[in-house]
Amino acid sequence: MDLTTVSGLTEAVQAGNRRALARVISHIENNTELAMPLLAALYPRSGRAHIIGVTGAPGTGKSTLVNALAGIYRQNDLTVGVIAIDPTSPFSGGALLGDRVRMRDLAGDPGVFIRSMATRGSLGGLAQATADVIMVLDAAGFDRIIIETVGVGQSEVEIASAAYTTVVVEAPGLGDEVQAIKAGVLEIADIFAVNKADRDGADRTVMALKMMLNLGAPEKFQVMHHGRMLPVNLPEAENLPQGWTPPVIKTVAISGEGADTLFEAIENHRLYLEQSGGRILRDRLRAATELRMILRDHLLKDLLARTDPAALEALVAAVARRELDPYTAVRQLVHENDG
Amino acid sequence: MDLTTVSGLTEAVQAGNRRALARVISHIENNTELAMPLLAALYPRSGRAHIIGVTGAPGTGKSTLVNALAGIYRQNDLTVGVIAIDPTSPFSGGALLGDRVRMRDLAGDPGVFIRSMATRGSLGGLAQATADVIMVLDAAGFDRIIIETVGVGQSEVEIASAAYTTVVVEAPGLGDEVQAIKAGVLEIADIFAVNKADRDGADRTVMALKMMLNLGAPEKFQVMHHGRMLPVNLPEAENLPQGWTPPVIKTVAISGEGADTLFEAIENHRLYLEQSGGRILRDRLRAATELRMILRDHLLKDLLARTDPAALEALVAAVARRELDPYTAVRQLVHENDG
Repeated sequence: MDLTTVSGLTEAVQAGNRRALARVISHIENNTELAMPLLAALYPRSGRAHIIGVTGAPGTGKSTLVNALAGIYRQNDLTVGVIAIDPTSPFSGGALLGDRVRMRDLAGDPGVFIRSMATRGSLGGLAQATADVIMVLDAAGFDRIIIETVGVGQSEVEIASAAYTTVVVEAPGLGDEVQAIKAGVLEIADIFAVNKADRDGADRTVMALKMMLNLGAPEKFQVMHHGRMLPVNLPEAENLPQGWTPPVIKTVAISGEGADTLFEAIENHRLYLEQSGGRILRDRLRAATELRMILRDHLLKDLLARTDPAALEALVAAVARRELDPYTAVRQLVHENDG
Repeated sequence: MDLTTVSGLTEAVQAGNRRALARVISHIENNTELAMPLLAALYPRSGRAHIIGVTGAPGTGKSTLVNALAGIYRQNDLTVGVIAIDPTSPFSGGALLGDRVRMRDLAGDPGVFIRSMATRGSLGGLAQATADVIMVLDAAGFDRIIIETVGVGQSEVEIASAAYTTVVVEAPGLGDEVQAIKAGVLEIADIFAVNKADRDGADRTVMALKMMLNLGAPEKFQVMHHGRMLPVNLPEAENLPQGWTPPVIKTVAISGEGADTLFEAIENHRLYLEQSGGRILRDRLRAATELRMILRDHLLKDLLARTDPAALEALVAAVARRELDPYTAVRQLVHENDG
């Protein structure tokens, strides 16, 4: 197969060719000329995988937990793609280091594919690139795709919107319990894992989470969360399936303890989404979010391409000198290009 | 003064009226009809404050450190605005709780203004709203503005681009040192604070950071970082002032220890930026980033307003059913609206 053409790469990816898969992902990450035709060709082949987001603060041990989880999926004859989101570290090549550590356990298994992605893209670029790579792994036939995100923040919320099932990892002793609440991840969690559960304070963390869940009827907030990115009104969003209470599961990732319970919880949530119609709804919400992100970047790129660079630089300089506010500058820029 | 009009609010904010200030911020956060005229009116009055970003993982104690820092600024007769970025927590009203804890120490001091902001906006909305509120506090005459961000991730990198001086807070014992590197914050740090320095492992964290700094010539990466969001070519970005080596400062925020050293380091960095021309350059980079963000959102909103909602919903549904890839859908959408 010819791995330099769109049709050759598309076929090879679907046939499970790993070199082709890595090459397609590189095209996407580097935004080459083949990137868009490849995405368009692979998109209709996607839609089968279950997508799992795993997120939590640094130090919770979520990489190790993802590793253990991938092992259990393999024991159950399910193939797994893992996408780890690591901000670029020019110092350590951190992303690669992470890959090597993981690879020790899962090396040589063709049913596992691990890829680190860096935040080297432009504003909002990572969320879109991640969505694209998920789609490619999906089209390549992986049964489960795990997205692991470092840190807790708005970017995690965006990336979580690509997952059907979101696992939020906590650990005892990472500051007080209030941190978990402040971090605002409760509303995106379908499942909680309290990792390092052999440490002091694990039960307190479990209790704190359960208390919060009882207080707050989390289903409602999932609707809010998914709803806030919508470019269109989806009246169905009001009817997101009720009745799922996020379980809180203790794990010790380093020994693998609890990982099987976590696996079962994820599969239960998958079945729940399928039976309740939640999966179809999340597909629509995801499509709406994705359309909006791509549209926004397309429009920006298009306008900047039509703008005289000197005029743009003059506007930037005027804004920097506070002679012009950026909102007025944007109106001028748009007006000039409408003529 | 009439606090219902743009001119009344603008004058009152500049005169130090706190009620007016709070009202203007509410207009921005809620994106009312007055928001844009207010921003346009206040923008020319801004540009005087020094803006400090304080970021770090949950559990590092950065809120307490910001509190201590604000106290030292007040001892030095400088007024301080603090903007704390908290993801929305519908459970706890976490943002408000945080404010109350802070207010205990700084209550009643008219030289301090503290505001929590939540991530309730749409995609990319928080970074823009934060930039707007910074500008308003700047126009209101605060000498120093501290932006505190929870978590470590791409959103922090975006928000950091609004600061002249970025302080990255680490703490011993939050997982291994590698976390700091993985989190990719090294490249945005102008100053490191190792907080909770009375704990075991503090010296090891300091050593690890210093080793990384020696390895990596951080000035280069600041250029990379600030450069990656540019909508225009700024050849000066290549000439960002060299010669600043991020100091690593031990602090114990809860007792205030080390906060004066941190204060001095921030002021040194401020002088360094002013003398080296770095401040002017950062102003241009910031203006360029801001223009790009506002332009992108403006174009999206404009196109969606011109689009037939039924046609949009049909496209979303087709993408969700995998009949159409989102890139082709976007091209169709743009094409239809160009006619």
